[in-house]
Amino acid sequence: MSATRYTYLGPEGTFTEAALRTLPEAATRELVPTVSVQAALDAVRNGEAAAAFVPIENSVEGGVTATLDELASGEPLMIYREVLLPIAFALLVRPGTKITDVKTVTGHPVAQPQVRKWLRAHLPEAVWESAASNADGARLVQEGRYDAAFAGEFAAATYGLEALVRDIHDAANAETRFVLVGRPARPAAPTGADKTSVVIWQREDHPGTLQALLQEFAARGVNLMLLQSRPTGAGIGNYCFAIDAEGHIADLPMGEALMGLKRSCAKVRFLGSYPRAGATAEDVTPLRPGMSDADFTAASDWLARCQDGRA
Amino acid sequence: MSATRYTYLGPEGTFTEAALRTLPEAATRELVPTVSVQAALDAVRNGEAAAAFVPIENSVEGGVTATLDELASGEPLMIYREVLLPIAFALLVRPGTKITDVKTVTGHPVAQPQVRKWLRAHLPEAVWESAASNADGARLVQEGRYDAAFAGEFAAATYGLEALVRDIHDAANAETRFVLVGRPARPAAPTGADKTSVVIWQREDHPGTLQALLQEFAARGVNLMLLQSRPTGAGIGNYCFAIDAEGHIADLPMGEALMGLKRSCAKVRFLGSYPRAGATAEDVTPLRPGMSDADFTAASDWLARCQDGRA
Amino acid sequence: MSATRYTYLGPEGTFTEAALRTLPEAATRELVPTVSVQAALDAVRNGEAAAAFVPIENSVEGGVTATLDELASGEPLMIYREVLLPIAFALLVRPGTKITDVKTVTGHPVAQPQVRKWLRAHLPEAVWESAASNADGARLVQEGRYDAAFAGEFAAATYGLEALVRDIHDAANAETRFVLVGRPARPAAPTGADKTSVVIWQREDHPGTLQALLQEFAARGVNLMLLQSRPTGAGIGNYCFAIDAEGHIADLPMGEALMGLKRSCAKVRFLGSYPRAGATAEDVTPLRPGMSDADFTAASDWLARCQDGRA
Amino acid sequence: MSATRYTYLGPEGTFTEAALRTLPEAATRELVPTVSVQAALDAVRNGEAAAAFVPIENSVEGGVTATLDELASGEPLMIYREVLLPIAFALLVRPGTKITDVKTVTGHPVAQPQVRKWLRAHLPEAVWESAASNADGARLVQEGRYDAAFAGEFAAATYGLEALVRDIHDAANAETRFVLVGRPARPAAPTGADKTSVVIWQREDHPGTLQALLQEFAARGVNLMLLQSRPTGAGIGNYCFAIDAEGHIADLPMGEALMGLKRSCAKVRFLGSYPRAGATAEDVTPLRPGMSDADFTAASDWLARCQDGRA
Repeated sequence: MSATRYTYLGPEGTFTEAALRTLPEAATRELVPTVSVQAALDAVRNGEAAAAFVPIENSVEGGVTATLDELASGEPLMIYREVLLPIAFALLVRPGTKITDVKTVTGHPVAQPQVRKWLRAHLPEAVWESAASNADGARLVQEGRYDAAFAGEFAAATYGLEALVRDIHDAANAETRFVLVGRPARPAAPTGADKTSVVIWQREDHPGTLQALLQEFAARGVNLMLLQSRPTGAGIGNYCFAIDAEGHIADLPMGEALMGLKRSCAKVRFLGSYPRAGATAEDVTPLRPGMSDADFTAASDWLARCQDGRA
Repeated sequence: MSATRYTYLGPEGTFTEAALRTLPEAATRELVPTVSVQAALDAVRNGEAAAAFVPIENSVEGGVTATLDELASGEPLMIYREVLLPIAFALLVRPGTKITDVKTVTGHPVAQPQVRKWLRAHLPEAVWESAASNADGARLVQEGRYDAAFAGEFAAATYGLEALVRDIHDAANAETRFVLVGRPARPAAPTGADKTSVVIWQREDHPGTLQALLQEFAARGVNLMLLQSRPTGAGIGNYCFAIDAEGHIADLPMGEALMGLKRSCAKVRFLGSYPRAGATAEDVTPLRPGMSDADFTAASDWLARCQDGRA
Repeated sequence: MSATRYTYLGPEGTFTEAALRTLPEAATRELVPTVSVQAALDAVRNGEAAAAFVPIENSVEGGVTATLDELASGEPLMIYREVLLPIAFALLVRPGTKITDVKTVTGHPVAQPQVRKWLRAHLPEAVWESAASNADGARLVQEGRYDAAFAGEFAAATYGLEALVRDIHDAANAETRFVLVGRPARPAAPTGADKTSVVIWQREDHPGTLQALLQEFAARGVNLMLLQSRPTGAGIGNYCFAIDAEGHIADLPMGEALMGLKRSCAKVRFLGSYPRAGATAEDVTPLRPGMSDADFTAASDWLARCQDGRA
Repeated sequence: MSATRYTYLGPEGTFTEAALRTLPEAATRELVPTVSVQAALDAVRNGEAAAAFVPIENSVEGGVTATLDELASGEPLMIYREVLLPIAFALLVRPGTKITDVKTVTGHPVAQPQVRKWLRAHLPEAVWESAASNADGARLVQEGRYDAAFAGEFAAATYGLEALVRDIHDAANAETRFVLVGRPARPAAPTGADKTSVVIWQREDHPGTLQALLQEFAARGVNLMLLQSRPTGAGIGNYCFAIDAEGHIADLPMGEALMGLKRSCAKVRFLGSYPRAGATAEDVTPLRPGMSDADFTAASDWLARCQDGRA
């Protein structure tokens, strides 16, 4: 295993690389682009890399399904960090291209809905074709296959292009969430503003079941941050759920909620507890009365006293 | 403290004494009648008796409020045993009295609703007056104060009376539940068919609150057997709740439910875990999937593995 | 039927009569005391009286079981008014009796727990015996059977007694709730501070069932004011529940909650919607967002538009 | 408006067209392929087509996000029919191509995860590039841009290709769900095996909120079939939920659940009630006791009687 190699969803010059470079440790790692999320994660699974950096959620498109599905299946992996990156596209063209010259545009399929309205307003006649990545789209423009590509502005230099239009994003708060993934190990200690990710598979499908599972969190005052259904592959109507909840597995309420899920679900996969990107203790949802670690410890002590006849 | 003295709600010759004598250990104890439930329990609290035997619930009248209120307040006590006794009254009269001679009848206030229909049918003109106990009613008949008393047939001999009518009880399944109460100590080991009693005080009164507290049991698959509201004495609208739930405090689901209550309630008083009278393992409500002690242990092990990075 | 006759739990000179006389209409009615709650209610059922006035709840003793059980069974009746009366006892004695002369005391069994602490502190040696009513206790003192009776001070004149001690009540806020009961009819219009009473019988006894029933209220934002379990008479472990909830049956949230109960329960008995004693609009629990009558109407209109293809 | 024109996600020769042709009415309609889901739906919105036929869910990839997002926003549309089509790919090549000749493959991005394992096993060296559609991939093979395309076998003839391998699908039960969408109108009458689709926006994000919304269904015994979170575009952490529930808006339990959602949510968009594809009355989840239309009607009648004093 290479302790210093980090894979990431390539190619170079994408938002993923830009997000990865916001991590201080990235400066001292060997950063290796891969052709797919799967390849990035497989390098971790087979010991060729210490960690992989991949997109997991997009504020416009929703869950990045390849990442969710890879984390939910195969050999277990864990999330250790998350990064939020605001997303704004530049329209990259070969030098000299004018807006009226643009008949074909390309970009990653995930980019398309984020520039859809802009396209309709400014290039209603342009034909869109998907590229394997935004950077790849830039390369295809360089090669002359398309007239323009949506990509991060930082990709222009790499491919000898120029940014004809900057800061394109249909939604006001477009951002993408990325995660740093490694093999299972003890999670980092709580920071006071943490998040826990799991994937759960329901035991059976009857009225109230999902609601009963969510109750495991609610009953312990644990706040849900994300609920994402994913098909299990067993046919329409069969889902698992990727859940992000506020707090750390070392917190007693979270621990009890997770044990409740473990008992109630057919299967639970723990994907890690890690610091919430850009959050401080002030961003944390206030605890309901009786739901602090101290309350859990006091209740546990009380139970022991009752069991011993000392209550 | 007298380790061999048991107080019980007297006087002699009541259903309470009859129920107490169904306990094998009663044969080797000094059984001391008291004038009230409070006196029986106070003797335990101040060390004059090892245990007190008092009625706690009646299938016709509901909770025996004096017992519930005494257990909910004052120095803590614990329940160690329960006894169920079918209740059937005899109409006791002085020898020679005929049914047509009976103009006044007496008995404990709790007896009255259990013989109400019988009285309406057979002695519609008779005037009822309450006595301090069924046995005391018998004594008052002996003294000539009333013509007849409702009491257990076993009281006839004590007071020189005879049973004019036997087996009187309005409801088909009339029975009374009695409990053996002592000072707090480690509960007896689980028998496989146990019951746990608590009294809870709500933190505040808002929509859904009581429902949220009951959810602490439901979420762990613990079955409720009794829910009895009792005024707290702080005015109309202020209640505490006496709850009997199926299972033993040493059972992991019950333990977690009790800790949940402890956190969510203003106050919880543990009143004991003890064998269910007349119940065997066959009478126990089947566990929901995932709610066995083994499931709780497995979930706890899994949590520890996740926390250690070994899941 | 006598449209002007009101029965009440007698005899004359009790707190019940005092409470009844707080109703303005009492001045123009023929007020007839009865020997029991049952007699008062039966007079309504058989048409001899227009209404009956009986105690239903006591802030120290809890539910007045005879009233609850009579309302829950037999021919249906409805509650039209409630009255709250602060309870304070006087110790009534024959003129000239000194506190040191008092060896025996009497009073209604419900009075006993309300003066228990006072008795322990001031008359620890006195023997208590129950009377059929507080007023009856006063009569027995008049007749010389007991030395003193706990009763309302207003009873002294009736029985030629004097109040040796006034304002006795163990609990700070002792009060009793009384209800005016009549045959079923359209409830009075909502006043803005109303209460609805029902009795429910569960369909079956399994974990979460009672919690599911309470959910019918919680889901519509309806606040519970009282939950009182009562044995059904079918043996220990079989209960029905008397429930008071905040609001009027004409309120849409209450109506939907009641329909939900009707569907989920084996049986529901509607006992009436009536003004809350001593409450104004300011005492009403604020509605949760989306739970006003206007919200219910808007949702109903929206549903109709959806069903018609006009949403 | 053209009452006989149906748009569908083109081009010709895709699974979408194959699924559309399973509808009997398709034989009498003018079927017009469009370049995108948006274009298909816009044609309905602006009156150029009577209905649009688009994929909405894929048993491997999950929600077809373009369709979900288009239905959740813009001018309201409604779903009138759904079709389930088993998905199996053929590997289409130019006549004469051998498996060992295949160095580059293409197909729709949604196809890729469904053939991923097959590719790894049989063409581990082949480079994948996404096409705008499976049919478009076939065209690109015809043009010589790629060596092979994954597409429905039915596309081979259209593009002069042959199926080198048939019946490729990683998951055992791969299928896609398509919907026929039109402008809002009265839903078709219930068939006894129906489904209702809505999109909901939460009022606020606090613990238990989503669980409370799901409770609106559970409380009326309505079974959830799909829960799909979708970003609202207001930044990471802001979702709406697409929900499919079992039953018809004309069913009383569903109607009451929808009204409950309407009151509890910031916004609810009704997307239609329509027959479940391939389901008969035997596939319908049995109703919980008390949850039939008859039970709802009986409860409503009972409420009216109570309100009128006739209960």
